Amino acid sequence: MAVGIHNVDFSAVPGVRLAAVASGIKKNDSNDLVLFEFAEGSATAGVFTRSLFAAAPVTVGKRHLASSPARYFLINSGNANAGVGDLGIADAENCCKALSELTGVAAEAVIPFSTGVIGERLPVEKIRSALPGVISALSEANWLVAAEGIMTTDTRPKIASRIFRLGSRDVTITGIAKGSGMIQPNMATMLCYIATDVSCAQSQLQALLTQAVGKSFNRITIDSDTSTNDSCMLTATGVSGADISSGGESADVFARILDDLCLELAQSIVRDGEGATKFVEVRVEHGATQAECLAIAYAIANSPLMKTALYASDANWGRIVMAIGKAPVTIDVNKLDVYLGDVQLMQAGQKHPRYSENQGAAVMAQETIRIVVDLNAGEFSESVWTSDLSHEYVTINAEYRT
Amino acid sequence: MAVGIHNVDFSAVPGVRLAAVASGIKKNDSNDLVLFEFAEGSATAGVFTRSLFAAAPVTVGKRHLASSPARYFLINSGNANAGVGDLGIADAENCCKALSELTGVAAEAVIPFSTGVIGERLPVEKIRSALPGVISALSEANWLVAAEGIMTTDTRPKIASRIFRLGSRDVTITGIAKGSGMIQPNMATMLCYIATDVSCAQSQLQALLTQAVGKSFNRITIDSDTSTNDSCMLTATGVSGADISSGGESADVFARILDDLCLELAQSIVRDGEGATKFVEVRVEHGATQAECLAIAYAIANSPLMKTALYASDANWGRIVMAIGKAPVTIDVNKLDVYLGDVQLMQAGQKHPRYSENQGAAVMAQETIRIVVDLNAGEFSESVWTSDLSHEYVTINAEYRT
Repeated sequence: MAVGIHNVDFSAVPGVRLAAVASGIKKNDSNDLVLFEFAEGSATAGVFTRSLFAAAPVTVGKRHLASSPARYFLINSGNANAGVGDLGIADAENCCKALSELTGVAAEAVIPFSTGVIGERLPVEKIRSALPGVISALSEANWLVAAEGIMTTDTRPKIASRIFRLGSRDVTITGIAKGSGMIQPNMATMLCYIATDVSCAQSQLQALLTQAVGKSFNRITIDSDTSTNDSCMLTATGVSGADISSGGESADVFARILDDLCLELAQSIVRDGEGATKFVEVRVEHGATQAECLAIAYAIANSPLMKTALYASDANWGRIVMAIGKAPVTIDVNKLDVYLGDVQLMQAGQKHPRYSENQGAAVMAQETIRIVVDLNAGEFSESVWTSDLSHEYVTINAEYRT
Repeated sequence: MAVGIHNVDFSAVPGVRLAAVASGIKKNDSNDLVLFEFAEGSATAGVFTRSLFAAAPVTVGKRHLASSPARYFLINSGNANAGVGDLGIADAENCCKALSELTGVAAEAVIPFSTGVIGERLPVEKIRSALPGVISALSEANWLVAAEGIMTTDTRPKIASRIFRLGSRDVTITGIAKGSGMIQPNMATMLCYIATDVSCAQSQLQALLTQAVGKSFNRITIDSDTSTNDSCMLTATGVSGADISSGGESADVFARILDDLCLELAQSIVRDGEGATKFVEVRVEHGATQAECLAIAYAIANSPLMKTALYASDANWGRIVMAIGKAPVTIDVNKLDVYLGDVQLMQAGQKHPRYSENQGAAVMAQETIRIVVDLNAGEFSESVWTSDLSHEYVTINAEYRT
């Protein structure tokens, strides 16, 4: 199950080549090894999981990024290389070294990523054997193939692309993402790779990515669980000749379009949430603080009772009341207005006198639903996006070995 | 579904009479109105929900308790009298007045409680009409009938009883509870009524109850959701003649047995958790602080991915790692030992070298499961109890209108 249509169009990014092959980590012979190659001179920014049990490739990747510009991303699906201690670090390093020997770049120029089962050793030999094949398949045209190659419980690839004018040049941003469960990112989403052909200093690129992630991947939740392997990367190849390092209008335009692309990818993860039949925005308006808005939005978005009501298309507004009530904040509930789509459910903390069950049911029957809580208390507003809790969610997670 | 056997034995409490009748709030003609009557001179302590949207009876009940000793508890199931603003307050007050007129006690001596659908007006006329019948049915023998009368999505009544010697007298504590979903109490559980025939000053009784609740009802979670109507009450009739007001060994014995009874009732709620097929203790040992132990225990106990793995009897220890990793604490994961039952999964932050999948699977196949995380960092330990996340949970909550 997944909600809404999905995009498969994209534009290649000059300076980026990709490939995906089946190395045998996944049992069904589907692609599980993805390679990104970036032109010399590219700058890369990254945002990583805050899990206490960050996976080995996260640790190795951060170290490599700090010591050398990235020339390759080596990504496997089917095995997370997490929870295996120092052995996992050595396995990730050995994969980087193997690619380094075949390509002539330093091992530190290779950034490793893994996603899949936690707690099993990475099959380094399978990856090593597949490297010559994946290198020879590198092409600018392989973005969609790569998006499919990083999938685990995802039912469809997530890809988004923008071409726009920056000064006198056409530039491109294209990104792919994966993620379907274990989604309440705490710095980034599962895995996301974005590339552009603008030129940008690394520090500026990092600032742009951090800001975009804060408004997109850090505002989604499917099951309130946080992956050990979350990583979101942004690489700028500079091949277009457009430079945004010095800020100004070009940088502003780029930032706005990057934000928009990240939000599209983040929302595509929610639309493909495990077992999702609904796509839900929870918006909290006019709070006294940002933290208060987010706490209430997540209390609603993560409530299993709210999510099962969404699955049942049940305009069960009592569960919205319950979820707001448990949020760890201090607010005056007598000021609260609550809307389901355009229908006002509550006014000043109680059921709106003209609200009828039929109105609520009509909104809940839709595939895309917006819940708005107006605190009438301040200037802050926040949105988070989520999916419902269905039988399919239980089936997927009772059967799949993370 | 529910886990394990359940108790239906109890001892009556001298000084307490009860009754349950069908007033027509519930559609299936089952009992939905319960009345407790306490002997004159009884003392009552209470602990209530911290929900921002506390239900009208919670507000009224706290006010009444502060102004008069309680003589009656008037409890309806089928309607929560929550989220209806000042109208709900008036409805609760009117029920208390009606009982006051029939019994001759002050309206403030009646404490109202409601549980069921949120957001609908309480059918005061139905309750008023049923009062003569429920008064005439009062008997010391009706504890189990009362336990059944307060059920909503519960599949079985929850009752526990202790008879013990205090000085030269035999005394009794008996309690009933209800609750199955919307369970992560933040001060108390759904509804719980405990009575004893010891004599005890109100302030001392409140201290005993608060302490017992902190170690039992405040340590369970089924779905991380918190009810608007949670209340836990303890009444001491004094009929036995044993007095524990002045502390000493008698009070210590009473406290220990009260703690034990509360834990039994709290665990019986988890065993009857919505759709529960497993009963799970999550214990975190040797933490540097109590808060750290609880944060990690709840991160595991509330993780949907952990709960679906428990449902599937899947020894998916990667999900334990994931859940610990997302806890909002700062710990050294390289010191962590993790046990599933008697089987050691992790040692010093990584998979134990002798752990095998078969060992883990044997533990997970059991109905009662214990997960122990040893932080090896300090002197604090905490346990929480939870159930799994099953298809039945989704079915119940997609069909039931809270």
